[in-house]
Amino acid sequence: MRLEDLPTPALVLDKRALTRNLERMQARAKALGVRLRPHLKTAKSAKVARMALGEGGDGLTVSTLKEARYFLEHGFRDITYAVGLVPSKLEEAAQLMREGCDLKLITDDADAARAAAKRGAELGVVFKVMIEIDSGGGRAGVFAEEEPLMEIGRILAAGPGSTLHGILTHAGQSYSCPSTNDIVAVAEVERSKAVLAANRLREAGLPCPVVSVGSTPTALFARRMDGVTEMRPGVFVFMDLFQSGLGVCSEDDIAVSVLASVVGHRPDGSKAMIDAGALALSQDQSIDGFGRILGKPWRVAKVSQEHGHVYPAEAGAKVEIAVGDRVRVLPNHVCMMAAMHDRYHVVDGGDEVVEVWDRCNRW
Amino acid sequence: MRLEDLPTPALVLDKRALTRNLERMQARAKALGVRLRPHLKTAKSAKVARMALGEGGDGLTVSTLKEARYFLEHGFRDITYAVGLVPSKLEEAAQLMREGCDLKLITDDADAARAAAKRGAELGVVFKVMIEIDSGGGRAGVFAEEEPLMEIGRILAAGPGSTLHGILTHAGQSYSCPSTNDIVAVAEVERSKAVLAANRLREAGLPCPVVSVGSTPTALFARRMDGVTEMRPGVFVFMDLFQSGLGVCSEDDIAVSVLASVVGHRPDGSKAMIDAGALALSQDQSIDGFGRILGKPWRVAKVSQEHGHVYPAEAGAKVEIAVGDRVRVLPNHVCMMAAMHDRYHVVDGGDEVVEVWDRCNRW
Repeated sequence: MRLEDLPTPALVLDKRALTRNLERMQARAKALGVRLRPHLKTAKSAKVARMALGEGGDGLTVSTLKEARYFLEHGFRDITYAVGLVPSKLEEAAQLMREGCDLKLITDDADAARAAAKRGAELGVVFKVMIEIDSGGGRAGVFAEEEPLMEIGRILAAGPGSTLHGILTHAGQSYSCPSTNDIVAVAEVERSKAVLAANRLREAGLPCPVVSVGSTPTALFARRMDGVTEMRPGVFVFMDLFQSGLGVCSEDDIAVSVLASVVGHRPDGSKAMIDAGALALSQDQSIDGFGRILGKPWRVAKVSQEHGHVYPAEAGAKVEIAVGDRVRVLPNHVCMMAAMHDRYHVVDGGDEVVEVWDRCNRW
Repeated sequence: MRLEDLPTPALVLDKRALTRNLERMQARAKALGVRLRPHLKTAKSAKVARMALGEGGDGLTVSTLKEARYFLEHGFRDITYAVGLVPSKLEEAAQLMREGCDLKLITDDADAARAAAKRGAELGVVFKVMIEIDSGGGRAGVFAEEEPLMEIGRILAAGPGSTLHGILTHAGQSYSCPSTNDIVAVAEVERSKAVLAANRLREAGLPCPVVSVGSTPTALFARRMDGVTEMRPGVFVFMDLFQSGLGVCSEDDIAVSVLASVVGHRPDGSKAMIDAGALALSQDQSIDGFGRILGKPWRVAKVSQEHGHVYPAEAGAKVEIAVGDRVRVLPNHVCMMAAMHDRYHVVDGGDEVVEVWDRCNRW
């Protein structure tokens, strides 16, 4: 089947760009001397995980326990679940471990740490738990310099149903850097805060084997990773307009787009409507409305549920197109756009759909 | 199972509020003397459609051909697909008709009308096509006063693979009304433009049996519907903060929420994190960030993929809560929030999950 024959809207993945993105990040990890533990929350695909890790490779990051189960069932065992643990999810986590998953959990909360230490013993497992620190992202995490880090460390190390597995952080502020020089600086903050936290734990006699950092921008621009053992970028597999806007990639590196059909247009070229709206594109509005049209100076400026409104993105440009014509919409934020779909229509640089890959959505 | 035992995040539907909302709209349609053809793009649920239409009732609106197939398989036949037709979808439309679906299509484009008239004959069916008009919403549609309306009408009526089935409009501008008085005025514009278009077609000797209007605000506040045959509100089944903000319903009428667990909190009560983020809540930001916490003066002010950041919504309020506690997030825009989930956990005014209902998502 060719793209012109696909029902629309449809998610398209270009394997050629994907391969290039994976090779670039693998080379970065090698040069920096750290392990690459890709965050599969972006792709939610066993095929992408296999390409990222190579035949026989293992070690990935997930954002839901459903993803952990999916990847376990696809032959991956070494899995970090990088969202703060909730006591009610510990039973499912223990079940995954009994089925062979080498699962790592995270927390930034002393009560949650106590729950894991107690519940692990009751469930007959030992949870490997990492402490999440805030390296400036402001989302979650304790501070590397403060006491809660040490308290949580002592609770987890004391067990009996838990061990202290390390430090984990995500410098989300790299997404708002005005220049790549600023990303270099954020990467060093992310690294140094994680290493500081690890060293404080070690100086107190607590174990801290793993020091895990990572976002796509910091992974690509960090000058050094001394003291870090692994990085967890996610969006790099597909890239998006947000990343190209940051200077992290070029638009040619964007591997994912939504194929849409024109359902209406204004004869004066002022506007067209496509059958990809809020549900097909997501409502992420970081840059260029809801996405840019591949190869054209047009953007999706408004969406309703199943409609996208395409307007010129440059003065003087006209949206010259007919009902039934097709366009491809590049993502602002590919994690969100891809999550609106349940499969990838895979092309290899051209128009032929060579494979269809599944995704593990929801919870 | 009770809500406290459900894995989170989870979509919860209160059948008691749903029933009240349905009864209110059924009474409105009766009082206005028009048929209620509910738009199931919001609920995407055969159970909700059956409750809305009653045993043996038929006649609904959908936003995708996948929904049309789903409802056909659940015993509904009289279906209006209210997104502009694309020539490449006509084959699937014809297939649905052969399987017993009394399908209605819409268009605002002369080329698309020509494609339907020609392709219907080739496929051995006669497409019933309505003309979409713009009654001020600015999304799609031709204008009631202008020539394209008549041109499309003549093409569709001439066939041979199409008939002109009527006029359809959606006054989307009702969503930005500052008061319910303004909604009354918008409803009258919606009605009068649709009736004007229908009368122009009829005066030219063209058939126009159906005059279809509708949004939840205009359906609830229209003073009269003279000349209109049916209305197609959708969001009324569940309601949301956007509708209560418009004055269209009270917060007690909101039938859908997302159940979430607390994954972290600041001991000073300044903030908590929940396991419902952009993927569980959607990214709709109409009012109150990404949603309000049921029964608490808190709101979800920020989201990342699987995290929601809960902050006080009022000066002096504190987010006093512990890791593992549960909250319910009310939707800004329920069509979007519900679409992030594949099933409803149905309660009946209380905490017990009495049923699980499916949804027909995607394309």
